Amino acid sequence: MFVLGIDPGLSRCGYGCVEARPGGRGARAVAVGVLKTPVDAPVPARLAELQRELRALIAELRPDAVAVERVFFQSNVRTAIGVAQASGLALAEAVNAGATVAEYTPNQVKEAVAGWGGAEKAEVERMVRALLGIDQPLRPVDAADATALALCHLAHAPRLARLAARS
Amino acid sequence: MFVLGIDPGLSRCGYGCVEARPGGRGARAVAVGVLKTPVDAPVPARLAELQRELRALIAELRPDAVAVERVFFQSNVRTAIGVAQASGLALAEAVNAGATVAEYTPNQVKEAVAGWGGAEKAEVERMVRALLGIDQPLRPVDAADATALALCHLAHAPRLARLAARS
Repeated sequence: MFVLGIDPGLSRCGYGCVEARPGGRGARAVAVGVLKTPVDAPVPARLAELQRELRALIAELRPDAVAVERVFFQSNVRTAIGVAQASGLALAEAVNAGATVAEYTPNQVKEAVAGWGGAEKAEVERMVRALLGIDQPLRPVDAADATALALCHLAHAPRLARLAARS
Repeated sequence: MFVLGIDPGLSRCGYGCVEARPGGRGARAVAVGVLKTPVDAPVPARLAELQRELRALIAELRPDAVAVERVFFQSNVRTAIGVAQASGLALAEAVNAGATVAEYTPNQVKEAVAGWGGAEKAEVERMVRALLGIDQPLRPVDAADATALALCHLAHAPRLARLAARS
């Protein structure tokens, strides 16, 4: 199973695709990176570019499932609007490409990957590398966060499958 | 010139398409309505459906310009996220279909259509009908708001054209 994690954003949209090894023997990294749009371009043009890049990425990787960070509104409202718009694109593209789609909160991701919801970003990044057997640091942080989302979905997937079988 | 106004929303996304009559002799309504997604469906599925419907609408109407209401964060944060996600889809679809895209605040729309930024919704709806020569009330309000956005863009278009010619 291929799972693509997406950490939505307009300036930097992180992605991390992992493949579950058969028999529950962990996972390997398939593709990790960041989609960027030019900060000085108008927002509609940036959204259009991000949409095209997300569509191309999903078409190339053909993930079975896509895990997207759930949007909350914290301090910076201007950034939050861009994040929500980017998440809308990611969710719509994933569903329309036929993937299973799930949203996770940052705390769910930290809990699944680092063992507790209060984990620091650096701790999450180290755990992601340990789980995937990656030596080099994962940069930028958006790429590490996106990969953590994919691993969070893999951790939840057996429970989701049981729920689906029951209903 | 065809202008499509979009009042973004996840439950109800209003649209109103108007055509400018040649020689600045006003405008006529081409299509007015609302795209709805089922309230009880998961958000990713609703966004995917809205994306497909927006794409089909833009492909059918082939607007030269698309005017989308600019998103602000007011009281209801849960609704605001859906509105921002829907606006992201509308903006990306419009740009990727080759249309000119503009965003307007509710106050800009009220000022352009009713003459002042503090106008009530009912006043805006009456002015939209008067400008387009429509006898019946425009319902629901999202459709009237979307049509007002299209008329707002027409009001701004001569100034935008002058700016473009100067640069």
